[in-house]
Amino acid sequence: MADINSPLESQPGKNGAIGVTTGPIRGSHKIHVGPTKEHGLHVAMREIRLEPTAKEAPVRVYDTSGPYTDPDADIDINRGLPQLRREWIMGRGDVEEYDAREVKPEDNGQLGPDRSGGVPPFPNVVKRPLRAKSGANVSQMHYARRGIITPEMEYVAERENLGRAMVRDHVRDGNSWGADIPDYVTPEFVRDEIARGRAIIPSNINHPESEPMAIGRNFLVKINANIGNSAVASDVANEVDKMVWSIRWGADTVMDLSTGRNIHDTREWIIRNSPVPIGTVPIYQALEKVGGIAEDLTWEIFRDTLIEQAEQGVDYFTIHAGVRLPYVPMTAKRVTGIVSRGGSIMAKWCLAHHKESFLYERFDEITEIMKAYDVAYSLGDGLRPGSIADANDEAQFAELYTLGELTKRAWEQDVQVMIEGPGHVPMHKIKENMEKQLEACGEAPFYTLGPLVTDIAPGYDHITSGIGAAQIGWYGTAMLCYVTPKEHLGLPDRDDVKVGVVTYKLAAHAADLAKGHPAAKVRDDALSKARFDFRWRDQFNLSLDPETAEQYHDQTLPAEGAKTAHFCSMCGPKFCSMKITQEVRDFAAKQNSDSYLASENIRRETPPEARENAEEGMEEMSRRYKEKGDRLYLPEDEVETGPAE
Amino acid sequence: MADINSPLESQPGKNGAIGVTTGPIRGSHKIHVGPTKEHGLHVAMREIRLEPTAKEAPVRVYDTSGPYTDPDADIDINRGLPQLRREWIMGRGDVEEYDAREVKPEDNGQLGPDRSGGVPPFPNVVKRPLRAKSGANVSQMHYARRGIITPEMEYVAERENLGRAMVRDHVRDGNSWGADIPDYVTPEFVRDEIARGRAIIPSNINHPESEPMAIGRNFLVKINANIGNSAVASDVANEVDKMVWSIRWGADTVMDLSTGRNIHDTREWIIRNSPVPIGTVPIYQALEKVGGIAEDLTWEIFRDTLIEQAEQGVDYFTIHAGVRLPYVPMTAKRVTGIVSRGGSIMAKWCLAHHKESFLYERFDEITEIMKAYDVAYSLGDGLRPGSIADANDEAQFAELYTLGELTKRAWEQDVQVMIEGPGHVPMHKIKENMEKQLEACGEAPFYTLGPLVTDIAPGYDHITSGIGAAQIGWYGTAMLCYVTPKEHLGLPDRDDVKVGVVTYKLAAHAADLAKGHPAAKVRDDALSKARFDFRWRDQFNLSLDPETAEQYHDQTLPAEGAKTAHFCSMCGPKFCSMKITQEVRDFAAKQNSDSYLASENIRRETPPEARENAEEGMEEMSRRYKEKGDRLYLPEDEVETGPAE
Repeated sequence: MADINSPLESQPGKNGAIGVTTGPIRGSHKIHVGPTKEHGLHVAMREIRLEPTAKEAPVRVYDTSGPYTDPDADIDINRGLPQLRREWIMGRGDVEEYDAREVKPEDNGQLGPDRSGGVPPFPNVVKRPLRAKSGANVSQMHYARRGIITPEMEYVAERENLGRAMVRDHVRDGNSWGADIPDYVTPEFVRDEIARGRAIIPSNINHPESEPMAIGRNFLVKINANIGNSAVASDVANEVDKMVWSIRWGADTVMDLSTGRNIHDTREWIIRNSPVPIGTVPIYQALEKVGGIAEDLTWEIFRDTLIEQAEQGVDYFTIHAGVRLPYVPMTAKRVTGIVSRGGSIMAKWCLAHHKESFLYERFDEITEIMKAYDVAYSLGDGLRPGSIADANDEAQFAELYTLGELTKRAWEQDVQVMIEGPGHVPMHKIKENMEKQLEACGEAPFYTLGPLVTDIAPGYDHITSGIGAAQIGWYGTAMLCYVTPKEHLGLPDRDDVKVGVVTYKLAAHAADLAKGHPAAKVRDDALSKARFDFRWRDQFNLSLDPETAEQYHDQTLPAEGAKTAHFCSMCGPKFCSMKITQEVRDFAAKQNSDSYLASENIRRETPPEARENAEEGMEEMSRRYKEKGDRLYLPEDEVETGPAE
Repeated sequence: MADINSPLESQPGKNGAIGVTTGPIRGSHKIHVGPTKEHGLHVAMREIRLEPTAKEAPVRVYDTSGPYTDPDADIDINRGLPQLRREWIMGRGDVEEYDAREVKPEDNGQLGPDRSGGVPPFPNVVKRPLRAKSGANVSQMHYARRGIITPEMEYVAERENLGRAMVRDHVRDGNSWGADIPDYVTPEFVRDEIARGRAIIPSNINHPESEPMAIGRNFLVKINANIGNSAVASDVANEVDKMVWSIRWGADTVMDLSTGRNIHDTREWIIRNSPVPIGTVPIYQALEKVGGIAEDLTWEIFRDTLIEQAEQGVDYFTIHAGVRLPYVPMTAKRVTGIVSRGGSIMAKWCLAHHKESFLYERFDEITEIMKAYDVAYSLGDGLRPGSIADANDEAQFAELYTLGELTKRAWEQDVQVMIEGPGHVPMHKIKENMEKQLEACGEAPFYTLGPLVTDIAPGYDHITSGIGAAQIGWYGTAMLCYVTPKEHLGLPDRDDVKVGVVTYKLAAHAADLAKGHPAAKVRDDALSKARFDFRWRDQFNLSLDPETAEQYHDQTLPAEGAKTAHFCSMCGPKFCSMKITQEVRDFAAKQNSDSYLASENIRRETPPEARENAEEGMEEMSRRYKEKGDRLYLPEDEVETGPAE
């Protein structure tokens, strides 16, 4: 499923710039909507223009791809992206610049004599990052709770409203399981959701390049893609392109799970070039700094790592503060024990010292750091089940309730929180996860990995998890962490990442549809109309992966003429149901209310006498059908509109 | 995702036999269980033997692959498979041989002067097929209702019980939505389910090669794969191998949806070599016989086609008898009209003649044919929705209630019935489909295509439909019709078929798990234990697609040594959560009930005073942990079992 026309392009002509994947997504154009109010917001979207024969408006879709798909943007990863939010952040007057913590050799995993690695430092590294002025709190939640609508909130409102204007007379259809999705998203609605903790806008003040997005049950379901460097990364463009490639196909946030060498520098490259929020698991880097010995971890090293990453602009931290000492024994009888890396590191630390986790003990101190940079918590589920057998067990829910307790403590300091969730869960136990999370964590956004609904399909775990993800997304999960086909087996390559992202994008969209999101159905309807009309190009362009769709079509009918053919390879012209159906339309529709039976009557069973009555007009109909050339549906202008009978 | 070691092997050495895919599925052996009672039944299963270090019994899994995966079987597609059921059928004394209907040129689509096609007739074609003696009814339902337990029912009981013996002390866990899955399947239970119409055993008396299987809500969820010939088939082995390839990966039944030339002869080759029930849509062939002109179809031509196919041994017929004239206009306002081929053919016929469908009018006559051969009905959903917009609409449910009416009419003649279902349905509308089907059709087995939960992912519709299939399977659908990645785009190739089958197999298994099938979890647990123990070979062999799993693993860690390594490429040795977890085990388990907090207390929130109490024993624990070499879990023999404190 490789992409066809979006190779990793080196752009040697352009000032020696290092290449990443650029160019519009097939069949669509970048547009900017706005300006909104005084902030001059220009919200990026993608517009898919349909064939003239469609006589329909272009379809606007949510766009996570950033400037990389904008042909007018000048991409240079040595420079990084424009600082969209810089003015907004400075304008609030509550931040100060200060001398950054000095980068140490161990930040890049260089403990021994070998200083190789191949990743050069980012050329324009920020020497004077921002932090909140003494006593200030720069979190979006803090502003929200003081009644302030930030430009970030306005941006989110505009972005989320996508398509809603097109469907004003739309009838809501869905089951949102108690969510509160508005017909129209106002900036005030966004502010209120942030203030209540039901949504977050991950937006570190040191990541001004990010385009604001919201994660919350009453917004579109989001997806995250994980990337991570290889042991030795020789090509920094390749590392940056993992992020660019993920967001091209729809990742709303990206987690950098790198370990090993060069992680500080690699992260800098990624953040400076990322238009989406970046998440990390700081304990990974902290562990590197102590040579991989979990027992040697200390609060001081962890704290220093948080500041290091906060200064770089990481937007959310996974913190496994719910892995408490007393819960570790609960995992002993499990089939797969502890499967979270961070969870197992902390479990080992707790047991080795026989002390309560320092992440739990020092939670309020961590929160102090978070609010000085507006880093959001992603409270890690270190005890998530790693197999069907372990789903919804004591250890998992003990941790969940602790995460609920910590959520409230973070909220006391107005710090944004989301909660990570499982894992491996059979379908009948998924809903309980959502319900308990809502109850325990006061509706803080849920951010789940899958869940995988069976253990027996390695190689297909993007699918086993996509099944669970669609369901838990429907039930209320705000963000779905993707799983690739290589899960449990190996490191995902470029194709795997794309398959993972598209699979999760479709699961998230299925959830939006089922929740009754006001505009979700616009794209489905447009694609289905294109399918019915045999507008093949529109069908490809409206799909989540136009390249694969066209490639698959062309494997059987490669000729250009087949793109306009009114049939396809599956049935051929003779058996094409859509072609046959196209021949009826108004001929039949017109009869719906007269010579035919009332639909209520039909719905159950048609009594014989009714059928006899109906038969009277049938011969006449048959005659007229033949007159009209035996077509099932007639074009608009051939329809008899008067009562001809 | 091509297979690695199961190529399409020509076996030129063997009597010029034509080759299809043979050989055991990697890491497993064909076994036969039985004999059961007087019939000398030998039920085929597949056994996966684990590494000796596992110290666990082999895992038996359901096996659809027939003799092709049995190294002891002598496969020759010119001869066809052994007639497993011949004696049982003859032993009942209610059938007679008669001269087969003569094959006509139009049966093979040879209407014009061109008689090419390349498919030779099957060499050992049956000239004297079986049918019920005058006045007799040879359907499994008929026997069941007279209290007779057939060998077919016994075979099914043995087959479905797979694994249940291993889990005698198993605690049932699931939500079956009102299904009635027994702890143990007896032949009498099977008989009762067939008698009540809640399950079917598709078993045409002219297809004695089939291994009996049941389709019903209280049995394992089954899957169907569709195959179909290309316009001109030059290689009959290739056509047969489509079936062999589908069942190798788990297809429980196969539908031959061929159109065009040679369909009679191709079908003969497939049935004679198929150990699984074969389904068809007879209207496709009938339409070929009238040159593709729907209006020219007649009852006589259709009836003749039914007999032609029943004599060959087709086990179930899709009959679109619910597409009634009055329902056609209900589709006029749809986004995608009628998307079923059979449905659109019948709609066109109805409108052209302005007459009620002859399938509906002649339904009881069709049933007469069905019972003479024990062909089961698969009542087609000709008006299924082809887009999210059309889901659960008037046309769809009008047809469904008619199918319910027809079910009862078929049951009056003791003929087996299942009901086909949608299609494209958003998640929140799936359950209604199942509920209405159960209500309207008296619990006759539901057989659904997907449903696809969004329209926007062509190229990934095995996944969009797998999401819906897992859900509707959980809710009660008895058989899931697979969808391949090429759906809506082109004809599936060999890899697509495999991906489609494996995707549906995992969806069906997820449904079994969620329904609380007594033994479904056996395989998940075995695989998860292998994963936790780093028994990579067992992990591959226990998975639905061992080849792809191993191939993916080897892409990152190809060395043979990595198959026994106690870590994998995703995290490396330092970050391996399973490795860390392996170090605790009993050390921690032992403490669970003494120095730690009671779990109920922990579950909510731990009061500070409780934490203080707990700390007392911690220093002691820390000391002992270090004594034991800092391992999270200890091996069995190092555990202190006495109260050492």
